[in-house]
Amino acid sequence: MEKKVAVLPGDGIGPEVVAEAVRVLEVIGRRFNHTFHTEYGLIGGAAIDEKNNPLPKETIELCESSDAILLGAVGGPKWDQNPSELRPEKGLLAIRKHFDLFANLRPVAAVPSLIQASPLKEEIVKEVDMMIVRELTGGLYFGKPSRHTDQSAVDTLVYTREEIERIVDKGFELARLRKGKVTSVDKANVLESSKLWRKIVEEKKAQYPDVEVEHQLVDSAAMKLITNPAYFDVIVTENMFGDILSDEASVITGSLGLLPSASVRSDGLGLYEPVHGSAPDVAGQGVANPAATILSVAMMLKYSFGLETEATAIEKAVNTVFEEGHFTADLAGKEQRSLTTKEWTDKIVDEL
Amino acid sequence: MEKKVAVLPGDGIGPEVVAEAVRVLEVIGRRFNHTFHTEYGLIGGAAIDEKNNPLPKETIELCESSDAILLGAVGGPKWDQNPSELRPEKGLLAIRKHFDLFANLRPVAAVPSLIQASPLKEEIVKEVDMMIVRELTGGLYFGKPSRHTDQSAVDTLVYTREEIERIVDKGFELARLRKGKVTSVDKANVLESSKLWRKIVEEKKAQYPDVEVEHQLVDSAAMKLITNPAYFDVIVTENMFGDILSDEASVITGSLGLLPSASVRSDGLGLYEPVHGSAPDVAGQGVANPAATILSVAMMLKYSFGLETEATAIEKAVNTVFEEGHFTADLAGKEQRSLTTKEWTDKIVDEL
Ligand SMILES: CC(C)[C@H](C(=O)O)[C@@H](O)C(=O)O
Ligand SMILES: CC(C)[C@H](C(=O)O)[C@@H](O)C(=O)O
Repeated sequence: MEKKVAVLPGDGIGPEVVAEAVRVLEVIGRRFNHTFHTEYGLIGGAAIDEKNNPLPKETIELCESSDAILLGAVGGPKWDQNPSELRPEKGLLAIRKHFDLFANLRPVAAVPSLIQASPLKEEIVKEVDMMIVRELTGGLYFGKPSRHTDQSAVDTLVYTREEIERIVDKGFELARLRKGKVTSVDKANVLESSKLWRKIVEEKKAQYPDVEVEHQLVDSAAMKLITNPAYFDVIVTENMFGDILSDEASVITGSLGLLPSASVRSDGLGLYEPVHGSAPDVAGQGVANPAATILSVAMMLKYSFGLETEATAIEKAVNTVFEEGHFTADLAGKEQRSLTTKEWTDKIVDEL
Repeated sequence: MEKKVAVLPGDGIGPEVVAEAVRVLEVIGRRFNHTFHTEYGLIGGAAIDEKNNPLPKETIELCESSDAILLGAVGGPKWDQNPSELRPEKGLLAIRKHFDLFANLRPVAAVPSLIQASPLKEEIVKEVDMMIVRELTGGLYFGKPSRHTDQSAVDTLVYTREEIERIVDKGFELARLRKGKVTSVDKANVLESSKLWRKIVEEKKAQYPDVEVEHQLVDSAAMKLITNPAYFDVIVTENMFGDILSDEASVITGSLGLLPSASVRSDGLGLYEPVHGSAPDVAGQGVANPAATILSVAMMLKYSFGLETEATAIEKAVNTVFEEGHFTADLAGKEQRSLTTKEWTDKIVDEL
């Protein structure tokens, strides 16, 4: 297989973790006989500094000519006071919208060797294995009117049937490949958009008789993610609820530093990035944990290239390296020697 | 002092827990020499059954002539298939809006004798003592347009400066009486309404130089409520974010069955109700935990009547009864004898 990957390192620890993830991608290419061409582009703060634009047109062109996008992280104090159009996260919102990457996939699973880092009790989190499917290009994030004066403000939560159908389908399809259960999260006792959402989920049920589906209100879901997170298989929800719930879910297993994400559209193009941020405080020190970005490469192999075996090889290598007790500074115990970003990736490369 | 309290028992366990809370109110009256007149009204499912209206005009009139409102809980499977205007929760939304009860106060504190029931580790939750201040009559819940067809749907998040100012003031005022820290939660990197919100918080700062204030994005706040809930003192936020975060927060200490709430406006009128629901599955068995409703009476004494000493007497009694190891079935350990709703309240009455 021959594929082109657009690599957007971004800001903070982005370049460090992306460099290691690209190394892993290359190892996979050699071992499984694929050619991955990588080409680099600017996004976020780095793009603002060089091009005065968080998503320059060169980057858009690069991504348009690629089969997948690998992103590090964007943002940092340097750009925090910028006007809203020159903020790093605008690059992220713009790339999602431009490429219509409507489905954000966020897996959260307990990692046995790291479970003691969870703020929750072990018996609550040890069986956690869920996938949050967040709608990423609609709702309050992009609805018009959206403006404020000194006296009032308005944002608009809009969804069309098509936008809801495609994300709900995604949820059902993913559940089929997993434990076969979808929890659709809405606020149908208050919001009209949730009523349409719930109606469409009900209609879709018939197409997926092998999948069990239930509705949960967003406030209940926020509770259940803490009291019984192992209950969930696939959660599918709209953009704003998904933003909140996926971040909430990201901390329950204690392995935020390990969580990958994918933002995909129907034809397979996808953007892959770690869930964690740009961590400007530790940037440039070579101590960042590259696991989440490496696991994002695994998601790329699986969801954009259909390379399941290769994806599993990476996931296994990561688990083995953790089980052997190799950790970067964020995860190492107080008395433990921690590995640098590069040293830890060397272990992964050895495994592969 | 002489006050009139509108009592709206509602559905499920509502009538049982409200009956005990009224008993406590009467004991407080006798002990501290106040007269509390109570008068009963219908709301929710009970009101739909009798008046075909979740908030009948008789109930509105009763509340208009009262100094405070005590509510049990609304809802149950019986009304789940009703059209949206005949759903029990519409009664709740309507009473909030009709009386302009814009500030929802939701305290969450760790109770040492119950901390083992928390899904979180003891060291994470033992110092938790926060107050969530949720805007309750604006935002997505009431903004127009709000409608759906078969093809699309829209809801509107609107806020005026006045609506934001009064809730932000409430947050600052409460922080002053507590640990002096306000965390304002918004999504200012995406929403225009959040930008106005953040601006107003920044302006208000000068009026409360004794209060420390910070901004947090809603997704970060959802994480921090789990990783470090003891960090928070007062959280102030808009309606939808407040709905999600306050329910999330309600489960972290393991004492959901104990949490009271107040929904107040500026002149002191307030509606007081337990955070838990109507629990139709255990209704009528006399086993419900009345603690949250009794603590809601304490909030009423404090926030509507200014009776701090009386409120504290109730809070102390509840803590003492727990420390002595008396629990209703929801909290009793497997080998423990549990008390009925009435027996447990007897202990409180004895304490008082
Ligand atoms: C940076 C921000 C705009 C973004 C979002 O809210 O979508 C982030 O929180 C995320 O979840 O990827
Ligand atoms: C019943 C529902 C409309 C209500 C809300 O969302 O406000 C409830 O969840 C609450 O928080 O009081």
